Amino acid sequence: MLVVMEQEATPEEIERAVQAVESRGFAARPVPGGHRVAICVLHNHGSVEPSLFLGLPGVKEVIPVTRPYKLVSRESHPTDTVVRVGDACIGNGTLTLIAGPCAVESETQALTIAGLVKKAGAHMFRGGAFKPRTSPYAFQGLGEDGLKILARVRRETGLPVVTEAIDHEVFDLVEAYADVIQIGARNMQNFSLLRRAGRSSKPVLLKRGLSATIEEWLMAAEYIMEGGNTRVILCERGVRTFAHHSRNTLDLSAVPVVQKETHLPVLADPSHAAGRRSQVIPLSRAAVAVGAHGLLVEVHHQPEAALSDGAQSLYPEQFVELCGQIRPIFKIFRPDGIH
Amino acid sequence: MLVVMEQEATPEEIERAVQAVESRGFAARPVPGGHRVAICVLHNHGSVEPSLFLGLPGVKEVIPVTRPYKLVSRESHPTDTVVRVGDACIGNGTLTLIAGPCAVESETQALTIAGLVKKAGAHMFRGGAFKPRTSPYAFQGLGEDGLKILARVRRETGLPVVTEAIDHEVFDLVEAYADVIQIGARNMQNFSLLRRAGRSSKPVLLKRGLSATIEEWLMAAEYIMEGGNTRVILCERGVRTFAHHSRNTLDLSAVPVVQKETHLPVLADPSHAAGRRSQVIPLSRAAVAVGAHGLLVEVHHQPEAALSDGAQSLYPEQFVELCGQIRPIFKIFRPDGIH
Amino acid sequence: MLVVMEQEATPEEIERAVQAVESRGFAARPVPGGHRVAICVLHNHGSVEPSLFLGLPGVKEVIPVTRPYKLVSRESHPTDTVVRVGDACIGNGTLTLIAGPCAVESETQALTIAGLVKKAGAHMFRGGAFKPRTSPYAFQGLGEDGLKILARVRRETGLPVVTEAIDHEVFDLVEAYADVIQIGARNMQNFSLLRRAGRSSKPVLLKRGLSATIEEWLMAAEYIMEGGNTRVILCERGVRTFAHHSRNTLDLSAVPVVQKETHLPVLADPSHAAGRRSQVIPLSRAAVAVGAHGLLVEVHHQPEAALSDGAQSLYPEQFVELCGQIRPIFKIFRPDGIH
Amino acid sequence: MLVVMEQEATPEEIERAVQAVESRGFAARPVPGGHRVAICVLHNHGSVEPSLFLGLPGVKEVIPVTRPYKLVSRESHPTDTVVRVGDACIGNGTLTLIAGPCAVESETQALTIAGLVKKAGAHMFRGGAFKPRTSPYAFQGLGEDGLKILARVRRETGLPVVTEAIDHEVFDLVEAYADVIQIGARNMQNFSLLRRAGRSSKPVLLKRGLSATIEEWLMAAEYIMEGGNTRVILCERGVRTFAHHSRNTLDLSAVPVVQKETHLPVLADPSHAAGRRSQVIPLSRAAVAVGAHGLLVEVHHQPEAALSDGAQSLYPEQFVELCGQIRPIFKIFRPDGIH
Repeated sequence: MLVVMEQEATPEEIERAVQAVESRGFAARPVPGGHRVAICVLHNHGSVEPSLFLGLPGVKEVIPVTRPYKLVSRESHPTDTVVRVGDACIGNGTLTLIAGPCAVESETQALTIAGLVKKAGAHMFRGGAFKPRTSPYAFQGLGEDGLKILARVRRETGLPVVTEAIDHEVFDLVEAYADVIQIGARNMQNFSLLRRAGRSSKPVLLKRGLSATIEEWLMAAEYIMEGGNTRVILCERGVRTFAHHSRNTLDLSAVPVVQKETHLPVLADPSHAAGRRSQVIPLSRAAVAVGAHGLLVEVHHQPEAALSDGAQSLYPEQFVELCGQIRPIFKIFRPDGIH
Repeated sequence: MLVVMEQEATPEEIERAVQAVESRGFAARPVPGGHRVAICVLHNHGSVEPSLFLGLPGVKEVIPVTRPYKLVSRESHPTDTVVRVGDACIGNGTLTLIAGPCAVESETQALTIAGLVKKAGAHMFRGGAFKPRTSPYAFQGLGEDGLKILARVRRETGLPVVTEAIDHEVFDLVEAYADVIQIGARNMQNFSLLRRAGRSSKPVLLKRGLSATIEEWLMAAEYIMEGGNTRVILCERGVRTFAHHSRNTLDLSAVPVVQKETHLPVLADPSHAAGRRSQVIPLSRAAVAVGAHGLLVEVHHQPEAALSDGAQSLYPEQFVELCGQIRPIFKIFRPDGIH
Repeated sequence: MLVVMEQEATPEEIERAVQAVESRGFAARPVPGGHRVAICVLHNHGSVEPSLFLGLPGVKEVIPVTRPYKLVSRESHPTDTVVRVGDACIGNGTLTLIAGPCAVESETQALTIAGLVKKAGAHMFRGGAFKPRTSPYAFQGLGEDGLKILARVRRETGLPVVTEAIDHEVFDLVEAYADVIQIGARNMQNFSLLRRAGRSSKPVLLKRGLSATIEEWLMAAEYIMEGGNTRVILCERGVRTFAHHSRNTLDLSAVPVVQKETHLPVLADPSHAAGRRSQVIPLSRAAVAVGAHGLLVEVHHQPEAALSDGAQSLYPEQFVELCGQIRPIFKIFRPDGIH
Repeated sequence: MLVVMEQEATPEEIERAVQAVESRGFAARPVPGGHRVAICVLHNHGSVEPSLFLGLPGVKEVIPVTRPYKLVSRESHPTDTVVRVGDACIGNGTLTLIAGPCAVESETQALTIAGLVKKAGAHMFRGGAFKPRTSPYAFQGLGEDGLKILARVRRETGLPVVTEAIDHEVFDLVEAYADVIQIGARNMQNFSLLRRAGRSSKPVLLKRGLSATIEEWLMAAEYIMEGGNTRVILCERGVRTFAHHSRNTLDLSAVPVVQKETHLPVLADPSHAAGRRSQVIPLSRAAVAVGAHGLLVEVHHQPEAALSDGAQSLYPEQFVELCGQIRPIFKIFRPDGIH
């Protein structure tokens, strides 16, 4: 951390800032520049609250230097984390496709879609039993009945299932049924949910929050890892910006940045980013090309009758087309990575 | 809702869209324009999923018209909601000041600050016992011990206390001690927490999410009201933008907009918006001038020793100065509104 | 356009709004809904100022429906525009690579880099002679000397050259030397520059503004086309968001949206979006995969000695690597599109 | 500037970075921390391109410390700049009101509005003769005829006039007629226009760009001051964010920040920020309360017939009301500041 002093800061103010640093147990090294003094803060383990120094007289700015995350950091764990789920594997150099409807609506619906996406090449099935909805009047999911349907999908197709735990209350239930537990974008900083996920034996798919920085996202993963669960999968799903031609702006630069900063695998969810079907296939191609370890894609056999997010769900034949388009892109880089 | 067709949409596509609308139980009225047809969707109660129609062939765009909220809407409840808490009153034309430290750190700290802010004119005391923190390694609050300290503050000063329930698990505990239960920005769309708050007999202070639209914020309030709790207080606390000279960008235009759309009272939190002390007093003046029903302000007697957010906490003498500056502004508009 | 009335709007207010619409020469068709009346505005050619009606008593909202652009619209011109520049061709199903340094610094520098990128497969050379710089103290480009160097690059390599006209004053000069005239992000709404570009016989590469919506961007292109110049090339280069791990957030969803809305070709500029070298190759792969008609990439043989934007410039061997990675991706979709 | 090395950077990489710093004529002081080395860059005058070092092997991050602006900086010029224009005065502790229509439409319109706003207490008149419009088909202003009308307004009312120079071409003309030359938000980084303004003898009102940081805004002012024109007035007019309940988000925290960083006066323009009439009065109160040196407000006697931006123009009686509301707020702080 760097504590930058005002140009006109007095020696007393500089001394007071140095003492404030030292009183916290850190080392302070003042560096006089041409115009002003900056104080380097050393020997801090992890992050330091900038606010400890920001308000002192004569202090102009406080600039964090050290990254606040530890367990998720590639510096602390240089090799890639690989998450195995049944026959599927995320982060080992293959391309993992997770597909299914936004919400589980019925056994017929789930089994129909699961059969179709499996045939097209999906490695896992996704579907919400508990749905976080902006409106209290919207369809909130089938609850445990939905989880039972997911279990049947797994039994009949062999596909591992990914489903969301929307809160601490339903976590045990979701944990009992799911192969991978999803934590949604709105819950990325629901810290008690993250702590609960940290105690789970199941892998956790952690979506990036709507306006989360990379650092906040990785700190959310740190909460899970700090609890003892090392099987964390990140998922970029678009961020909120001024632009409204897509529901969110898919931030694909996050993928290489995350891969540099952390050892955890990272997927992309073009369906939630786009919010409309017509952008899903091009964005899927882009996500694979940028280097994501896999995709989370919404597919519905009757999207115009879907109970939620139908507009962004691909028709099954579009998912077949998507698979046909992304495989060769992936193959270019990792000829042995298609299973 | 308006379903806008492509210019080259065929009569069959228009007919199919009309049928899709009608199959959902709504009335469809196609309006041919100069270049294209738009279909008005009528007789929908509350909001309709745009996605139901967005993916149909020939459909260019779907434009929502009706607001999705009901109970919070001023159209459904034209008179202002007034929330009484002990001797304090929010939304009745007075200016309510809620002040205190970010976190309760000790009995001495809390009582000292409470005494100071009460003397300066605060109507309620704020202080976190459970703190949502970006890092798992940061101070997380004193927990129930903090709540007990808050109870003592109330006993000794007579000030009602506001404190945050960071999750469903601690809600009962917080509810038992607090006079007003705060739901933080990161939890604005924690729907199970909102539902729990809806079953509470205590008033709820609902902060706007970091990147929440007014509509999403009011829908979060709708969750609480739908559960039966009508005592909801909104609080604007800044939104995330590209600008970084303040921690968040305080969106003061939200105050008149919210006051037009809903009957619920709305406060402003200049401390969390600014993230640094030097902006808090000017932003407080602005928030009072724009018409907010009150302020939530962080005050600490030793901010450089605070365990969280010290940089944005006012010194007690600054809070006295703040009170001195905002009272006459408020008085201009509501000569009888200062108690 | 749809004029939405307040729920409690009186018949007189509705009538007044209808008259306001008709007084402007449009047709007004009121549509009574369940809760409120909406008035459809018909027979407007192009866009209508929402503000004409937004302030009327009883009017709640005004929602634009028709797109305001005409000449750039795919609805008015369904086939793709192809821009030929020397041997290069943009928008005809090939992938066009435009590469070179941020700024022309010397004849040696430009010729060296041009030779390297040509050999690697670039179809055009880019380099700024006039540089728009945030600071008046930063290097502003070589001016006409830079243009002469570009002319020599074209003579010696055969590569057409792209360079920016930063203002109206230098436009004639740039036009005399350049094969394609670039209009930068900061100038996207410099309307006199756009009008001048509209009178040019040279193709114009129009970058998207830092916070421009797709509609504003296409309206900027409309300015150029309205002046008579139909050879407009769009270029997505990232938008400003809260995220700072890249300089701007490359909005790849803009590519399919623009391709649906307009017949003009669209490139991507991963270098300016990323602002750092390490993201350029992955983002280039993504941009090609999403379907961009080409790329604008910064390359420098000595980036650490570059006078501007060295951090985002690829080393020549990295550009070779980039070409090797993107060609097979492109080839998958357009087997005959690699020239 | 601080060059932060990777944790695993080798001594050779650190040495190479030190040499890169020194080869540019700066001093380099490596500071070894607990985990990594950071190199302080000293003796740089003004800003240094981060990109010079960002791409070097072993360099993780480059953090600017010194502000890049000089002439506009309060550090270099501690006392407030006061801009006198006729009888009006901006920045001397009074509150300056600049009011008038968005565009000059006719002599009658301008004189009518000018008479009304003068009577209500405005100190200067605003009105556009050249209008920057998103659409080439929208009303572009009366041009020189509009300027002549402004001259007549000044003659008849004594009010100095503020009007926009939308480009370099019309600058001479605008300069000949205007008392204050406005540079609009879209032109904030039109550097040739800024340079031209720097050579003008008239004061310049510089609006903040739609997505400009404070630093970029002040650097734009630096361009003008660097040319020799010290009479620069800043104007906050809202920034583009995800929020759409107002046209732009008025960033009032910018006012105290700017006042701390620079000696130049700063106004607020609530009309362009809001984009709708109903928010203008509350935001005006807030802007005065936050400490702005004055306001720029749109007023029209027949807003529903205005040729541009009618929806945000106040009715004359509303402007009277606005004046009545803001004066006492201002008076609280500066009892002698109302002229």
